[in-house]
Amino acid sequence: MLFTSDNWGGVHPEIMAAIAAADGGFAPAYGNDELTDRVRKLFAEIFEKEAALAFVPTGSAANGIALSLLTQPFGATICHEHAHILIDECGAPEFYTGGAKVIPAAGAFGKLTPESVREAMAPYDPPMAHRVKPSVLSLTQATEWGTVYTSVEIRALRDVADQYGMKMHMDGARFAGAVNASGATPAELTWKAGVDILSLGATKNGCLQAEAVVVFDTGLAEELTYRCKRAGLGTSKQRFFSAQWPAYFGGGLWLSLAEEARAKCAEVADIFAATDDCEVLVEPQINELFVRMPHDRAKSLRDAGAEFYDWVQPGDPYAGEARRFVTSWETTGEQVEALKRAL
Amino acid sequence: MLFTSDNWGGVHPEIMAAIAAADGGFAPAYGNDELTDRVRKLFAEIFEKEAALAFVPTGSAANGIALSLLTQPFGATICHEHAHILIDECGAPEFYTGGAKVIPAAGAFGKLTPESVREAMAPYDPPMAHRVKPSVLSLTQATEWGTVYTSVEIRALRDVADQYGMKMHMDGARFAGAVNASGATPAELTWKAGVDILSLGATKNGCLQAEAVVVFDTGLAEELTYRCKRAGLGTSKQRFFSAQWPAYFGGGLWLSLAEEARAKCAEVADIFAATDDCEVLVEPQINELFVRMPHDRAKSLRDAGAEFYDWVQPGDPYAGEARRFVTSWETTGEQVEALKRAL
Amino acid sequence: MLFTSDNWGGVHPEIMAAIAAADGGFAPAYGNDELTDRVRKLFAEIFEKEAALAFVPTGSAANGIALSLLTQPFGATICHEHAHILIDECGAPEFYTGGAKVIPAAGAFGKLTPESVREAMAPYDPPMAHRVKPSVLSLTQATEWGTVYTSVEIRALRDVADQYGMKMHMDGARFAGAVNASGATPAELTWKAGVDILSLGATKNGCLQAEAVVVFDTGLAEELTYRCKRAGLGTSKQRFFSAQWPAYFGGGLWLSLAEEARAKCAEVADIFAATDDCEVLVEPQINELFVRMPHDRAKSLRDAGAEFYDWVQPGDPYAGEARRFVTSWETTGEQVEALKRAL
Amino acid sequence: MLFTSDNWGGVHPEIMAAIAAADGGFAPAYGNDELTDRVRKLFAEIFEKEAALAFVPTGSAANGIALSLLTQPFGATICHEHAHILIDECGAPEFYTGGAKVIPAAGAFGKLTPESVREAMAPYDPPMAHRVKPSVLSLTQATEWGTVYTSVEIRALRDVADQYGMKMHMDGARFAGAVNASGATPAELTWKAGVDILSLGATKNGCLQAEAVVVFDTGLAEELTYRCKRAGLGTSKQRFFSAQWPAYFGGGLWLSLAEEARAKCAEVADIFAATDDCEVLVEPQINELFVRMPHDRAKSLRDAGAEFYDWVQPGDPYAGEARRFVTSWETTGEQVEALKRAL
Repeated sequence: MLFTSDNWGGVHPEIMAAIAAADGGFAPAYGNDELTDRVRKLFAEIFEKEAALAFVPTGSAANGIALSLLTQPFGATICHEHAHILIDECGAPEFYTGGAKVIPAAGAFGKLTPESVREAMAPYDPPMAHRVKPSVLSLTQATEWGTVYTSVEIRALRDVADQYGMKMHMDGARFAGAVNASGATPAELTWKAGVDILSLGATKNGCLQAEAVVVFDTGLAEELTYRCKRAGLGTSKQRFFSAQWPAYFGGGLWLSLAEEARAKCAEVADIFAATDDCEVLVEPQINELFVRMPHDRAKSLRDAGAEFYDWVQPGDPYAGEARRFVTSWETTGEQVEALKRAL
Repeated sequence: MLFTSDNWGGVHPEIMAAIAAADGGFAPAYGNDELTDRVRKLFAEIFEKEAALAFVPTGSAANGIALSLLTQPFGATICHEHAHILIDECGAPEFYTGGAKVIPAAGAFGKLTPESVREAMAPYDPPMAHRVKPSVLSLTQATEWGTVYTSVEIRALRDVADQYGMKMHMDGARFAGAVNASGATPAELTWKAGVDILSLGATKNGCLQAEAVVVFDTGLAEELTYRCKRAGLGTSKQRFFSAQWPAYFGGGLWLSLAEEARAKCAEVADIFAATDDCEVLVEPQINELFVRMPHDRAKSLRDAGAEFYDWVQPGDPYAGEARRFVTSWETTGEQVEALKRAL
Repeated sequence: MLFTSDNWGGVHPEIMAAIAAADGGFAPAYGNDELTDRVRKLFAEIFEKEAALAFVPTGSAANGIALSLLTQPFGATICHEHAHILIDECGAPEFYTGGAKVIPAAGAFGKLTPESVREAMAPYDPPMAHRVKPSVLSLTQATEWGTVYTSVEIRALRDVADQYGMKMHMDGARFAGAVNASGATPAELTWKAGVDILSLGATKNGCLQAEAVVVFDTGLAEELTYRCKRAGLGTSKQRFFSAQWPAYFGGGLWLSLAEEARAKCAEVADIFAATDDCEVLVEPQINELFVRMPHDRAKSLRDAGAEFYDWVQPGDPYAGEARRFVTSWETTGEQVEALKRAL
Repeated sequence: MLFTSDNWGGVHPEIMAAIAAADGGFAPAYGNDELTDRVRKLFAEIFEKEAALAFVPTGSAANGIALSLLTQPFGATICHEHAHILIDECGAPEFYTGGAKVIPAAGAFGKLTPESVREAMAPYDPPMAHRVKPSVLSLTQATEWGTVYTSVEIRALRDVADQYGMKMHMDGARFAGAVNASGATPAELTWKAGVDILSLGATKNGCLQAEAVVVFDTGLAEELTYRCKRAGLGTSKQRFFSAQWPAYFGGGLWLSLAEEARAKCAEVADIFAATDDCEVLVEPQINELFVRMPHDRAKSLRDAGAEFYDWVQPGDPYAGEARRFVTSWETTGEQVEALKRAL
């Protein structure tokens, strides 16, 4: 009964096979190999657009690099008050940007709205040099609460960003789930809706280590390269990491894995919805479920072998009783059944 | 009718005379002169304690340097949600600390409480490496809302800081007002109550440029020196700036100037208290007054020649109608009278 | 005839098998898994000492993190004028340390000497705040020129470091070669000789991605963890990367791979030694060979299919005619024969 | 017999009078006052060009801000191997730029040449992401060795900078001396010869605290303002510091003070030229003289009351026997005479 995080999962056999198949003899290091070159073309197909790309080891590194391309040190990033970049990356955005602030905005269940962004911007409008200069609006897609922005919602946020001269970043640590849930294309959820840079994560969805910075403005390619190198993010044997992407995207594996995880999450949601002292806080759209659950229920569930995290955020309105359950393509029916029995 | 800020004021004649008197011939640069040496001894008297000292050009620089001595880049500073270091220094704390976060805590009219600090700390307790590690609690004395901490209140906050392993910083841009209002000694309001580093400002209170970082842990002296040098904060002709302090502290000029400014502020508060559509938001303890005033009243007052700032802070509960009035030792009775007439 | 770099090589089959074997079900992320725990114990055996460990994606990241633990931003690192950290990491040390300088010292063929370190230190001794404060001495073992420090030489450098209050870092990107060449133990080449932190690289020697920061002062463990997290260096599926180390160290694979690479390098050196217009600049001790070769010879060799890098360093005394040849455990006898024929 | 540094000097009476005259009543803080506005216009006259201006407390801060406008963190500044920014600012350029390297180039007596810049650039040409990207060429005018670049020499260096895509910075801590010595206009020595940003110092030449960042590309004005604010460099009572400039430039005081200092330096040079065991290392063009002098001679001179600094630089060819003598407009004939007698 493991519902802690999708990054506790393994590597999908097809992905692992692709990594192993990349071996054999020498190839140029640092992504100058043929396989990586092919992957660059693949990204252009998936996103229907040429983009500058960097392959990096983690999502936090991807976010940090992305933000460093979009804001000066005296700038700031506006994001949801529960955003990973604000709360859970130990200040990586500040490290990568040279100290640009990350400023919280409100929004129900992880989703920013034009109004909440405008409210957060009030103290910075009009700009004055005593205060930092917000320069980036960052969305998480899917959000930290498992909700999903439609392309229309993203475009509306872009319009607000434009009003203040801000660029737009998307943290796509669980982007596959958002694509699968929304039915929109990768392009529709990103550059077509106004996203300048996407942090694309695949590690949580069956890869070994596959995170990419997708920069739709190719004019930033040189800076992207230098910043990654300077941060020590360029893996010398990149071909093995590049090998994951054709297996991931090819044949739609990424979406079917996301779908499996989402289906299991829906099952778990149904179980909690039918449990008296538990409340499903928001309908899950991807593979994350948030349940309000009294402490004794949480304890008994854990005693029965279930693993999951408490969900503590700044300004918590749930009195410390919110819990997070995450499913994965590896979550088995048995695990879900066991949870049901344990309740 | 100028009530914008005390830093719009001039230099007190005794201070200016002291600066001029420091001239004449050569003297070692960068604070290695005799006069600066004497000033160091004077600080030890005023604070009843030997401290490592740095004289810097601005309060923001003083705060930045102070915080950089107390937190690692992966640390954070907890402060009031309206604190100058959080809102009005264009990210200087992040610049000086190498990107350590500044995290807001609540509190009525600028004052933190043990409870509000504990609430802000909830997401960081127990510590985990995904989240930054709060390392400093920073108070402003007097606060951004013109209120004053008693030494007992400061000690209570220090106890909370200790609970989380945090050091304590005090932004004393208007420290003279706090000393004068509280009747406590400089020592009682700082190291005796648990303050590790004080940013002491005198510029707003009649000096030309007099800001000091007062580090009560003399073991930090070397780091203090290097950090100031590295930031280009060491003025070569320091003797002229040092000259201000004996004039400022000597004969109690600093407290009498603060008292004059406070008295004028109280008069202005009385005027607004007697004005129907205006509300004094909090009894002023120093030389800053906050009044809720409808927009048309603010406009007519400005049309009549009054100058003052709107007070826009994140999460403003006053619908943009809060206004700030600051007095100074230079504020004349005529100015106050004119304001009364204009209302 | 590929002699560009050992990081163009593949992954040793035993290593790849170990990675694949780490799959299957869920395990705690971010190195909190059992396998990683076992690896920590394995390191303690190999180095005969408990150390704080961080597993990071690249050698540059390892070096950056290591230096950030040893110097303040106003400090500096003394290293060889051709050191990777100075020349070939795009400023990663500056990025990680918050801007601490990297200061070159001389030394024949990549090796610092007590004298060369003292000469580099002259402008900083005695320390003064106008100048940065050298705080780390960094050695590369084996060096950028393929030479190896004995443990006695390392200890002598440590004595010099102590004289100036500096800590000692070792960049061990090719540490296996140094151990194999010297016959000394890992402990003798590191903490027993005065090394505080080792950047241990295994990627160039048959792994997929295996770089570790080995911090012999366990009191730095917390800072190590925070700094890695803040830089986005913590791979979520760490178990797969941890899996490499038992295969690498177990049965001495690491040393036999290094030995094979060294043997091939010696063969190549013999070939060049017997070539009239080529000069072996320094006897290779590991798997790197430096040859002075006229441009037309280099061109004809490349035309014949040989791949190798020119070796351009600041203050090059070889008029641009130095060339680097690197062998690997994958270098075949046929490749060496082909090179011989091409000459 | 004080020849340590011109920043040991006092404030010229006309400058001090101008500061005092700026007092009286309130004025907008942070340089928004009328006097500062007039000074901006004065700079446009002196430099025959509109420029973005920042007034900062020190030359190191001016240099740091200037470089931060011209290079990314992954960039680098090429400068003379004895440049103040490289050796004597405790890493301020790294602090302000977010860690961009400062790379030394050679040149006799402080002066870069097209050849020495090209030599320093060799390892970075063509650019590759493993190495930083040199982005600024920084000259000191007059140089650290008291020599002066002609406008033709500056233009030739600009041509080299252009070849590599570098911008050009000038550290003008002793700019008045260079203008006076060269007979060229401020415009001819700066933007007309290709300088993008000038750090203009007046403190060493009779002011109290007068350093300006003169940015000839006015498109950088916003960034200039934010970066200064973020560094805590904006003095609230700027009018008093602005007051110095009309007194300094008006009536040519700046050039007459520089000329007096230069004349005294020439006298001192003549004295040493006539002293058997001393060697004037380079003909002084401004108010700095460098003399090779045996240690016993230096000791006897100091015993006789002379004060001056030893001149220790990296790679010192003078075996520690170089000494620096600096004169000032305040240096008296008696002091020079006393030196003569002491020899």
